[in-house]
Amino acid sequence: MIRFECDYGEGAHPKILEVLAQTNLEQTAGYGMDPHCDHARDLIRQACRAPEAAVEFLVGGTQANATVIAAILRPYQGALCAQTGHINVHETGAIEASGHKVLPLPAKEGKITAHQIRQACEAHWGDATHEHIVQPGMVYLSQPTEEGTLYSLSELEDIRAVCDDYHLPLYIDGARCSYGLGATENDVTLADLARLANVFYIGGTKVGALFGEAVVIPDPAIQKDFRYMIKRMGGMLAKGRLLGIQFEVLFQDGLYEQLGRRTVALARKLAAAFGEKGIPMLHKSPTNQQFPILTQAQRDKLGEKYAFSFWQQVDEDRAAVRFCTSWATREEDVDALVADIQNL
Amino acid sequence: MIRFECDYGEGAHPKILEVLAQTNLEQTAGYGMDPHCDHARDLIRQACRAPEAAVEFLVGGTQANATVIAAILRPYQGALCAQTGHINVHETGAIEASGHKVLPLPAKEGKITAHQIRQACEAHWGDATHEHIVQPGMVYLSQPTEEGTLYSLSELEDIRAVCDDYHLPLYIDGARCSYGLGATENDVTLADLARLANVFYIGGTKVGALFGEAVVIPDPAIQKDFRYMIKRMGGMLAKGRLLGIQFEVLFQDGLYEQLGRRTVALARKLAAAFGEKGIPMLHKSPTNQQFPILTQAQRDKLGEKYAFSFWQQVDEDRAAVRFCTSWATREEDVDALVADIQNL
Amino acid sequence: MIRFECDYGEGAHPKILEVLAQTNLEQTAGYGMDPHCDHARDLIRQACRAPEAAVEFLVGGTQANATVIAAILRPYQGALCAQTGHINVHETGAIEASGHKVLPLPAKEGKITAHQIRQACEAHWGDATHEHIVQPGMVYLSQPTEEGTLYSLSELEDIRAVCDDYHLPLYIDGARCSYGLGATENDVTLADLARLANVFYIGGTKVGALFGEAVVIPDPAIQKDFRYMIKRMGGMLAKGRLLGIQFEVLFQDGLYEQLGRRTVALARKLAAAFGEKGIPMLHKSPTNQQFPILTQAQRDKLGEKYAFSFWQQVDEDRAAVRFCTSWATREEDVDALVADIQNL
Amino acid sequence: MIRFECDYGEGAHPKILEVLAQTNLEQTAGYGMDPHCDHARDLIRQACRAPEAAVEFLVGGTQANATVIAAILRPYQGALCAQTGHINVHETGAIEASGHKVLPLPAKEGKITAHQIRQACEAHWGDATHEHIVQPGMVYLSQPTEEGTLYSLSELEDIRAVCDDYHLPLYIDGARCSYGLGATENDVTLADLARLANVFYIGGTKVGALFGEAVVIPDPAIQKDFRYMIKRMGGMLAKGRLLGIQFEVLFQDGLYEQLGRRTVALARKLAAAFGEKGIPMLHKSPTNQQFPILTQAQRDKLGEKYAFSFWQQVDEDRAAVRFCTSWATREEDVDALVADIQNL
Repeated sequence: MIRFECDYGEGAHPKILEVLAQTNLEQTAGYGMDPHCDHARDLIRQACRAPEAAVEFLVGGTQANATVIAAILRPYQGALCAQTGHINVHETGAIEASGHKVLPLPAKEGKITAHQIRQACEAHWGDATHEHIVQPGMVYLSQPTEEGTLYSLSELEDIRAVCDDYHLPLYIDGARCSYGLGATENDVTLADLARLANVFYIGGTKVGALFGEAVVIPDPAIQKDFRYMIKRMGGMLAKGRLLGIQFEVLFQDGLYEQLGRRTVALARKLAAAFGEKGIPMLHKSPTNQQFPILTQAQRDKLGEKYAFSFWQQVDEDRAAVRFCTSWATREEDVDALVADIQNL
Repeated sequence: MIRFECDYGEGAHPKILEVLAQTNLEQTAGYGMDPHCDHARDLIRQACRAPEAAVEFLVGGTQANATVIAAILRPYQGALCAQTGHINVHETGAIEASGHKVLPLPAKEGKITAHQIRQACEAHWGDATHEHIVQPGMVYLSQPTEEGTLYSLSELEDIRAVCDDYHLPLYIDGARCSYGLGATENDVTLADLARLANVFYIGGTKVGALFGEAVVIPDPAIQKDFRYMIKRMGGMLAKGRLLGIQFEVLFQDGLYEQLGRRTVALARKLAAAFGEKGIPMLHKSPTNQQFPILTQAQRDKLGEKYAFSFWQQVDEDRAAVRFCTSWATREEDVDALVADIQNL
Repeated sequence: MIRFECDYGEGAHPKILEVLAQTNLEQTAGYGMDPHCDHARDLIRQACRAPEAAVEFLVGGTQANATVIAAILRPYQGALCAQTGHINVHETGAIEASGHKVLPLPAKEGKITAHQIRQACEAHWGDATHEHIVQPGMVYLSQPTEEGTLYSLSELEDIRAVCDDYHLPLYIDGARCSYGLGATENDVTLADLARLANVFYIGGTKVGALFGEAVVIPDPAIQKDFRYMIKRMGGMLAKGRLLGIQFEVLFQDGLYEQLGRRTVALARKLAAAFGEKGIPMLHKSPTNQQFPILTQAQRDKLGEKYAFSFWQQVDEDRAAVRFCTSWATREEDVDALVADIQNL
Repeated sequence: MIRFECDYGEGAHPKILEVLAQTNLEQTAGYGMDPHCDHARDLIRQACRAPEAAVEFLVGGTQANATVIAAILRPYQGALCAQTGHINVHETGAIEASGHKVLPLPAKEGKITAHQIRQACEAHWGDATHEHIVQPGMVYLSQPTEEGTLYSLSELEDIRAVCDDYHLPLYIDGARCSYGLGATENDVTLADLARLANVFYIGGTKVGALFGEAVVIPDPAIQKDFRYMIKRMGGMLAKGRLLGIQFEVLFQDGLYEQLGRRTVALARKLAAAFGEKGIPMLHKSPTNQQFPILTQAQRDKLGEKYAFSFWQQVDEDRAAVRFCTSWATREEDVDALVADIQNL
């Protein structure tokens, strides 16, 4: 079985294992107060052109989302997000666990618009009973989205403008950040994210790390006591340097962006193969996740050799499925799949 | 600087790094549903002689404590524990974050007694206004304690008896479990823990793993939906096998207990050296943490070459400090410290 | 201005004030442990034909909802309800405050169906990633609904059957319970509610009391320690007898049902007047809330003399508005409004 | 049985019932947005000489404490208070329910000192591991305390100074506020409370109201969105005017302070009687609660005719008990008790 069903099926980029072994018997302070974490923070600040940003490392994405959102919101506030947003559908109530309602907006291809956010705020503040309704307190976006799509720079700037109008912190979930940066259609840089978001995270788990997400916090209000929040949420790793070391490797010599470009290129080979075969896609995805609509027969045939995920039923026979490439995907596996698509 | 200030200053036992590298490009299912986790579960169940126990792996101790306690308690219940218990003093409110009060009892050398627990329950249920008071809902112990001491088997059996009388689940925090098992005075086995506790955890972070704690759940009521709780608390590791692999190594060929014995033996060499020098200990510790009471001059002198932790002021000049050994402590470093103690 | 905009604009039924004055200087135990509360409990158990049910009194509806739901759900569970359900839209996150996600289902005229609930459960348990999704843990209904509509007995029985299949406690919010009981179309008695629901509440605030809701708990599992939950949620009234006294009055000599019948009859006079005038209703409501669709001119005209609530825009000119009658509505005010409707 | 066991055993001052009856059929807006609430707000602002303060009305004390504390603290912060403070001992975890640890300090006669607060802050901020410890985020005091004692003006000013040094909001629980104001030893006015506290509440439940506490918020940071917090905590009363009307009565013509003076005078008669009889008090209380230390025989004797509360065992035979007077206490009942004390 060749696996394309997710982008976290393997361990880590070999370079990371190598440096973990090299540094294994170093004795350092715990909890992210070590030289490796400090160095990784510097590299990330440079990559983001955000010399004043705080950078903290967390083990996983749900933890990052829950911690950041709990740090931002007042108890009676909620987070505006896409209906399909990860915090709304796949975190078993980790946001509600801190007492906050998720405020979903209808999504198109995983995205929401500045206009929708503005409407939601107008609806709230224009309602005479607004004290009886959860107050919109922030905006949560994913870049790339859970559907593999990307916000353009101008879309993000429009959203930022609405956030400014309504004093809403903007938080961007970058679990697959690298696979956005690596897309040819992408026009949003890390520096743009640091300029437009109050806080965002750069995902490592799905991009070459064993585990780990780097939370970048340009906004001083969110920086304040953020490390207390991490500990309170159970997210302070004793051997914090394990996170620092991994991000040192990823942000040295452009490895993070290089992994993204390679991974997306492989995904585009798959997209091209489906396209040539006349197989429609659920929607166009410029990143590492591709969503072809396959008949049951096609799913059965490819399923003999490849693992992929069910996404959604489209009609009685056909369903969208998801193929992911990742930093670990082997070119020969993609080529084999391309050949099998051609022979469907 | 030679470091004795904590037991999580280095990376992992070399064997763990080796197996992580060997398995790095395996493709497995995520979230702890892979063959390595399943194998590690079996090894741990065997070590605990608890064939029906559930075993789940978490990244760190605060997360383990917060998740287990949130899974056990009803909203109006609290956890009885020692005043010095980790959940009471060093978790930034991670237990309260789920809405639960910690109910501290005065501790002697880090321990509480069956009698104290019984008294607390009698006081609660005997109070006419008990509905206005947080209800004792479970007991939290650490074995070894935060003070390096150990509960004896008969002490634990007495506590179990009180727990039975008051229907209180018993949870044992085994962050340094191995360093209890490795103590010559110890008479409590893993099988005893599995028999007496409703749930406990076997610590990896401080005993040779990069990170990771194995939560062992003999009680079916706590097993139910425990994985939902993990996810809800942000503790479900995407590449769960990283935890499984580490516990596979630790529980293969007795490595976990072997690391404990070696570590404690080194600590006892330190204890002996302090004793021979006539330096008193804060209390007798049979495990890897030793608490000599040093003068300021002695602290300054040893501080030139060794890192250790301040513990508590004893009188104007003297303070108890903590020296930890760990799985990674080098025998020659202990020998050097012993020599320097002799020369104080 | 004659007010029809809500059903809690006045104080209390005169009989309640009278008894409060009579009993004012009695000295009783606090917190609902007094003879008045006990007597009211008995009267309610009789009315519900539920001799084993627990009955507790709370001050308001949001408090009742938050307390009951927090008492039922495990931390990773949510409450299935109508999109328009009060807990989803008008409680400022009081449910999320205890860590629970509200799981809204599309509503038709304020109602959801057994089929929808079954589908939601099947979708959850049939999803391979269900541990990553909030688990349906109960069903919340309102009877009458926020849209003035009623579940029929057979609809409730069908919902009960699904709840049995999926082990979901059923909770019914009866803020306007009396105005359902008083509807001629209604075929659901208090005894039916007590038989079909695990817990429900009988609203006093909107039906003649100064304030107060009687939570009826047939299910022993929810009875257990429910009073601790009340206190923990800040809902334990010091002079609990104030609640007991009010429900004694309401449930003596059938006052509660009598107020409902009268109130609904007045609402039906309004409905008839709109109908005769050819003014459409948003939907047919058999209870005390009526939702005519009025032009801007009609709204302006009636607005000169009467207060009513905006409900929702229907087209550019027309909007549905809400007229409520209540236990306090004066017949002559209804007659005046009927005349003014005829003259529109 | 003549009851002295608490100060909430009767209904309300007759004037309150009278005005509730007079206003019963007024139609007003709900949720505290009515003219009675506005008028009561004005009266309270005048009494506090705090023209800019916000005033909101809540039904009970636990609700007031939970709402205010949740409004002030960040998630990783706790409330410093006396070990005997109401939030620490008698609220079934209502503070922890919002995720906050209560940080108790040893109390002397129910009071804590500026020095203790300073020490707690120094200990926190001076600890290298402070990110692992709940951060002191506010100070909670009761005036009068749960032990009937009073802070002097200079004690409160000293506490304010520490609060300023450490940026800690100061919150004062005034459940028995009137009985402090009415004490001859008292030198703290409502205006002092408004000047020194960031927020405090004026208790009605124990001082003549059916129920109700007036939360006075001089600090604009706590004012912001406080009404959302009330609703989120389930504390927004539908017929909010019931609270407004009661505080209108209490703050018209000095009734609130007058009730306090009378009640305390009666308590002092009791204290004098115990003193003349040579019966020691647990400590001197200048307010409406008195704590004589009685032998078992004395308790049995008085218990035949009077209800009072057990407070704490003092030695094998003797226990402190509590006698409360209240606004409703009849002078003849006090005289009877005085006579019976003399005959002990």
